Amino acid sequence: MAMTLGEIAVRFGLELTGDPGLAVDGVAALASAAPGKLTFCTGAKYRAELAVTRATAVVLPRELAAACPVASLVSPRPYAAYARIAQTLHPVPAVTGGRAPGVQVAPTAQVAASAWIGPNVVIGDGAVIGERCSIGPNSVLEEGVRLGDDCRLQAGVVLNRGVVAGARCSFKSGAVVGSDGFGFAPDADGYVKVPHLGGVILGDDVEVGANTTIDRGTIGDTVVGDGVKLDNQVQVGHNCRIGAHTVIAGCVGISGSSIIGSRCMIGGAVGIAGHLEIGDEVVVTGYSLVTHSLPGPGMYSSGWPAIEARKWRRAVARLHRLDPRGRGGAGGG
Amino acid sequence: MAMTLGEIAVRFGLELTGDPGLAVDGVAALASAAPGKLTFCTGAKYRAELAVTRATAVVLPRELAAACPVASLVSPRPYAAYARIAQTLHPVPAVTGGRAPGVQVAPTAQVAASAWIGPNVVIGDGAVIGERCSIGPNSVLEEGVRLGDDCRLQAGVVLNRGVVAGARCSFKSGAVVGSDGFGFAPDADGYVKVPHLGGVILGDDVEVGANTTIDRGTIGDTVVGDGVKLDNQVQVGHNCRIGAHTVIAGCVGISGSSIIGSRCMIGGAVGIAGHLEIGDEVVVTGYSLVTHSLPGPGMYSSGWPAIEARKWRRAVARLHRLDPRGRGGAGGG
Amino acid sequence: MAMTLGEIAVRFGLELTGDPGLAVDGVAALASAAPGKLTFCTGAKYRAELAVTRATAVVLPRELAAACPVASLVSPRPYAAYARIAQTLHPVPAVTGGRAPGVQVAPTAQVAASAWIGPNVVIGDGAVIGERCSIGPNSVLEEGVRLGDDCRLQAGVVLNRGVVAGARCSFKSGAVVGSDGFGFAPDADGYVKVPHLGGVILGDDVEVGANTTIDRGTIGDTVVGDGVKLDNQVQVGHNCRIGAHTVIAGCVGISGSSIIGSRCMIGGAVGIAGHLEIGDEVVVTGYSLVTHSLPGPGMYSSGWPAIEARKWRRAVARLHRLDPRGRGGAGGG
Repeated sequence: MAMTLGEIAVRFGLELTGDPGLAVDGVAALASAAPGKLTFCTGAKYRAELAVTRATAVVLPRELAAACPVASLVSPRPYAAYARIAQTLHPVPAVTGGRAPGVQVAPTAQVAASAWIGPNVVIGDGAVIGERCSIGPNSVLEEGVRLGDDCRLQAGVVLNRGVVAGARCSFKSGAVVGSDGFGFAPDADGYVKVPHLGGVILGDDVEVGANTTIDRGTIGDTVVGDGVKLDNQVQVGHNCRIGAHTVIAGCVGISGSSIIGSRCMIGGAVGIAGHLEIGDEVVVTGYSLVTHSLPGPGMYSSGWPAIEARKWRRAVARLHRLDPRGRGGAGGG
Repeated sequence: MAMTLGEIAVRFGLELTGDPGLAVDGVAALASAAPGKLTFCTGAKYRAELAVTRATAVVLPRELAAACPVASLVSPRPYAAYARIAQTLHPVPAVTGGRAPGVQVAPTAQVAASAWIGPNVVIGDGAVIGERCSIGPNSVLEEGVRLGDDCRLQAGVVLNRGVVAGARCSFKSGAVVGSDGFGFAPDADGYVKVPHLGGVILGDDVEVGANTTIDRGTIGDTVVGDGVKLDNQVQVGHNCRIGAHTVIAGCVGISGSSIIGSRCMIGGAVGIAGHLEIGDEVVVTGYSLVTHSLPGPGMYSSGWPAIEARKWRRAVARLHRLDPRGRGGAGGG
Repeated sequence: MAMTLGEIAVRFGLELTGDPGLAVDGVAALASAAPGKLTFCTGAKYRAELAVTRATAVVLPRELAAACPVASLVSPRPYAAYARIAQTLHPVPAVTGGRAPGVQVAPTAQVAASAWIGPNVVIGDGAVIGERCSIGPNSVLEEGVRLGDDCRLQAGVVLNRGVVAGARCSFKSGAVVGSDGFGFAPDADGYVKVPHLGGVILGDDVEVGANTTIDRGTIGDTVVGDGVKLDNQVQVGHNCRIGAHTVIAGCVGISGSSIIGSRCMIGGAVGIAGHLEIGDEVVVTGYSLVTHSLPGPGMYSSGWPAIEARKWRRAVARLHRLDPRGRGGAGGG
């Protein structure tokens, strides 16, 4: 859809410098935007691209406004303002209620008439699907699953028995929520499986990435707070609790029963051991290993940046050489 | 279901202190258990919670029996005893044989009448499905797959051609067993795919986690021993061999042709290079990288615990500073 | 199928020593090959196995020819030659065009008559499926997906709207290509989702592993070059660009907007931060963390080999002890 810059300035509370009657019909990147498009510029390092942009308007912070060769829309949080404008210019199609062929819905399930149930979806006994939900093809919602309004599942999502999600949750393809956690009690002759009797409870506005897995609790529930965003291939162990508005990047693994605070940012591929407590507003940089509880707020790290392999081999040897007892230890043999 | 403490003591060989006529109808956590529930206490660090538990009975080690305010059931392995009792009080529903709508079974497949085949399941030529197996919705079992008795597949599992599993194996959603491994031979102009002619053979009582992948062998098979437990998002490369009763936590990656012994414990997110041999009863702590063969028994590590980011940056610089040749090496440039 | 050694020598341009009339009907491992099979030997470390092989013929480098007790086929790249011969002796069955039961194809999709569409596959509006493609059971191809000729999707693959792939691409089960990337703009009260308006473009001969995920671009596309091989459980963030013939091993995570050159080799479980540039012919060894751009060609590392746990704990303490300001830092508390 198209909007004038005047409409955008009013609707999103931005300060416009330029012709309010100019219209934009979409967004584009700063360097490649054509006339008729809106773009954004978040910092001085993009100043050279800003100087030559052909976009019709740029959302930017106040300090860059003077450098903008076209219409500018000033915001203290230009990226968030851009995101909202982009959502408006490129709206997600509204959900049209109905059921595709091949759907199997248990008679005791309650599915809102405004929800769309895609091809081959299976919905179990007693499930409750809220208004305007969209369930992608080949997804499976087992017995007792409850989805709030406006949830969207891409194709091939699995929600195991009794998983509860609030409103506006998003599940990408291959996400598995509610499978039994990894609980085995060692016994004389192997392991005994520990029954997983708890559930998974997701708040509102939770996003679950593609092929991400969230295990159900053993006793008690695994709980994911409002506004939590989980990237792809994240693993959340049984009985974890993740606080509101925490963001977890791809490939992170969280062992069972750990508690993560609110508004944390966990970088990619971080590993978090079990039974820890991480405070509010903790940042863990990518590829770190968390083995102790971490108070918040704070920023924590343990990743080693890659360097030339021959230098790296020397660095590894050096650490072990420091201790005479450590000689020859690098091989592990 | 409900059982009396007397029945439990006899059936599981536990020493009861308390009224054998008291009944429990389920399990609960030590701190939150209501009367009528059974719980467990594995160590002295939970002594404060034990002192105020409202559970009807607690499974615990002998040294905690005197501190128990309610009925106690003493076991040398209280967690395993608890797990067995919990399985009994909360039984997994028995499988009812039959086929849901939308199932497609090849005419040459042999499916036990006692097996349940869920909605939209596809079973290929020559597959053999044992007694009382349960195949979750939208799963795909390709030609020649063979499942022993009492296997359970959650929704959306894929077993590629010819995968063989023993009795009582469990596959969680999104597990993919038997896809071609990562084998490419470098050639003058790119890579040539190496055909994967081997299979995957799983023993009895193997558990395969959600979105875990196990590749088939190139020549010869990938083999997973009896009682092996693989958590979610584990990757097992082609031609690996994993010994009986080894437990592998989430997000572990094992490169091709490595051999892991029996009764090992591999921590979360461990990386294991290819063509290695890990002995029996080896423990690798989480987030370690295994680049050499490791004799067993033994415990091995290489994970760095996260600390405050500014301290960590100093530590990284320090290692590189130790060697005058290493100056400036941290940038990798 | 069976071929004579003479036919093989001519077809693959190899130098035969031995009876050209001998026939082989398959491949096998050097140590276990029976007569009638062809095998390969790539280096001197397998010389003992070579000396006693019972295979009918061995593909090997010139320097091993004299040590071969049976017919030899000399190649400068014996593993690639072996792979091509194995492909010929064990051909992948040709695709037979048609549609299985339960298929749902949108009326505006164009599916080549020579393509096979497996059970329960869903194909959206405007999708284009090339000649001889094979789409495995329960796969979902959303609107606008375009596949070149001879692509093969295993069971349970998801290609989101508008994903484009060239000829001869291969997708293993659970692969998800084209889901929205992880883009959220922080705002006063949580996060705003950034619309993902770009797509994913894969070249020819791309291989996508099981449960691998490739996100679509925010603005502009995520691009994967010709001949790129992605192993299982790889995560490729939005707007990444991967150059031709680069090989990426399992469990690698690549953050958004990073650019990887051509003919790179990225080891297992490597983490690559966002907005980096990695040159051509860069090797990153397994379990490294890339936090800076890396010029190519070159080899880079940052993985610590696991050693005995008690030695490792001492090494960790040692690094922190080196700096008096670091005392007590290891606990992160």
